[in-house]
Amino acid sequence: MPPVKGGGMEIIVDYEEYIIEGRNAITEAFRSGKTVDKLYVLDGCHDGAVNTIKTLARKQDTIINYVTKERLDQMSSTGRHQGVIAHAAAYTYAEVEDILQVAKEKGEEPFLFVLDEIEDPHNLGAIIRTANLCGAHGVIIPKRRAVGLTATVVKASAGAVHYTPVAKVTNIAKTIEDLKNEGIWFVCADMEGEVMYRQNLTGPIGLVIGNEGSGVSRLVKEKCDFTAAIPMKGDIDSLNASVAAGVLAYEIVRQRYEGNKK
Amino acid sequence: MPPVKGGGMEIIVDYEEYIIEGRNAITEAFRSGKTVDKLYVLDGCHDGAVNTIKTLARKQDTIINYVTKERLDQMSSTGRHQGVIAHAAAYTYAEVEDILQVAKEKGEEPFLFVLDEIEDPHNLGAIIRTANLCGAHGVIIPKRRAVGLTATVVKASAGAVHYTPVAKVTNIAKTIEDLKNEGIWFVCADMEGEVMYRQNLTGPIGLVIGNEGSGVSRLVKEKCDFTAAIPMKGDIDSLNASVAAGVLAYEIVRQRYEGNKK
Repeated sequence: MPPVKGGGMEIIVDYEEYIIEGRNAITEAFRSGKTVDKLYVLDGCHDGAVNTIKTLARKQDTIINYVTKERLDQMSSTGRHQGVIAHAAAYTYAEVEDILQVAKEKGEEPFLFVLDEIEDPHNLGAIIRTANLCGAHGVIIPKRRAVGLTATVVKASAGAVHYTPVAKVTNIAKTIEDLKNEGIWFVCADMEGEVMYRQNLTGPIGLVIGNEGSGVSRLVKEKCDFTAAIPMKGDIDSLNASVAAGVLAYEIVRQRYEGNKK
Repeated sequence: MPPVKGGGMEIIVDYEEYIIEGRNAITEAFRSGKTVDKLYVLDGCHDGAVNTIKTLARKQDTIINYVTKERLDQMSSTGRHQGVIAHAAAYTYAEVEDILQVAKEKGEEPFLFVLDEIEDPHNLGAIIRTANLCGAHGVIIPKRRAVGLTATVVKASAGAVHYTPVAKVTNIAKTIEDLKNEGIWFVCADMEGEVMYRQNLTGPIGLVIGNEGSGVSRLVKEKCDFTAAIPMKGDIDSLNASVAAGVLAYEIVRQRYEGNKK
């Protein structure tokens, strides 16, 4: 696998392997059936969460290496390994079609996230986590000018990347156009838009979230069918991008499952 | 910095940066909960007092810079830095009464956030940002086992700390009890609780959010009047704490301003 570019930084992802750090992320990787090639555990660490990971590793015949804290610190790219680092088979991005297929197999109307240039890996991870929990079928991210699925993202997603497909596309605007032809409606997060409660967010839907600083780009916004704003009653400009994505996603959930009560 | 306006009223926020020199003064600054933005330490200095300061700095998420003696001498105004110089922000925590006063002056029913042991500074910052934008009157955090208003928090709040008062209390459970006597109802974020749409979240309300890993502690949960759960449709355990706080806060906003449509 080639180096993955992420928002100004370059994280080298090994040819066949990538690194997962932290207890939750590694536990989820095992539980979701990912192939973990090697596990590095802090020597002398015997607490419950780490023992669970070791048990999962033995079941999967994963090689366990006991190492010093210094060694783990050296290997860590997030700086927060919590005493465990795993080398897993490289993450495979899904195709957009795979996401639609998930919806089809569940017999649900498609619900997907489109992220237009999210740069912060914690935000991307938190958004994939939200996508998983709110019942979305997948996440679409752009190939350029955005963070990809780095170790930090995998950790911040609390393992959601192992369940929720993430597709990487060359041109977000073009992908939206294609998906509109498949009957999906696109709602653009736009703080100057119509208040979210007044929009009908039921049916097959794509939620478009923009960059942390500049929001959704003009070209992408033009492709969307409508806008949705979160009501703002404060003094500052905007919510954190992953919080905004969460609030909008759950307004979609509410309308889907509670009926659209305007 | 001049008084900052917070939605119609004036909240005095002292935010002048000042320099603290010497081991005792800096140790005291950390121990008293002062926000130290940057710490300059003589490179190669490892004695006990300096190590204690470094430990305190790491706990508070303070950036540590290792510099030469010449650099410290230049920065020093007392000429007696003893190998350590700190840049502190004189952020003053509010009192719980100040938060109620903000609500009163706005002629609104109190709406506050209670954070039970949030540890991640990005989460705390994002939550204060959300509190500001959803129209909450203030945020209550505990003195112990939680992150305070560090430089990272101030930054992640996108400036919201300058508008939304943050009070630090010794005992969260006791504070909730006192505020219940003032007529405020407390809703506990609890993923095993009643679905948020089914609860009446109007009226004077305190939203209680728990620790990233372990949720709201038993003692605090017992003090709450009711629970609210975000519907979860996915494979993993929980949303990011700041996303969960945002989703619940906006369900309160919806019910307050749109009427409680169950």
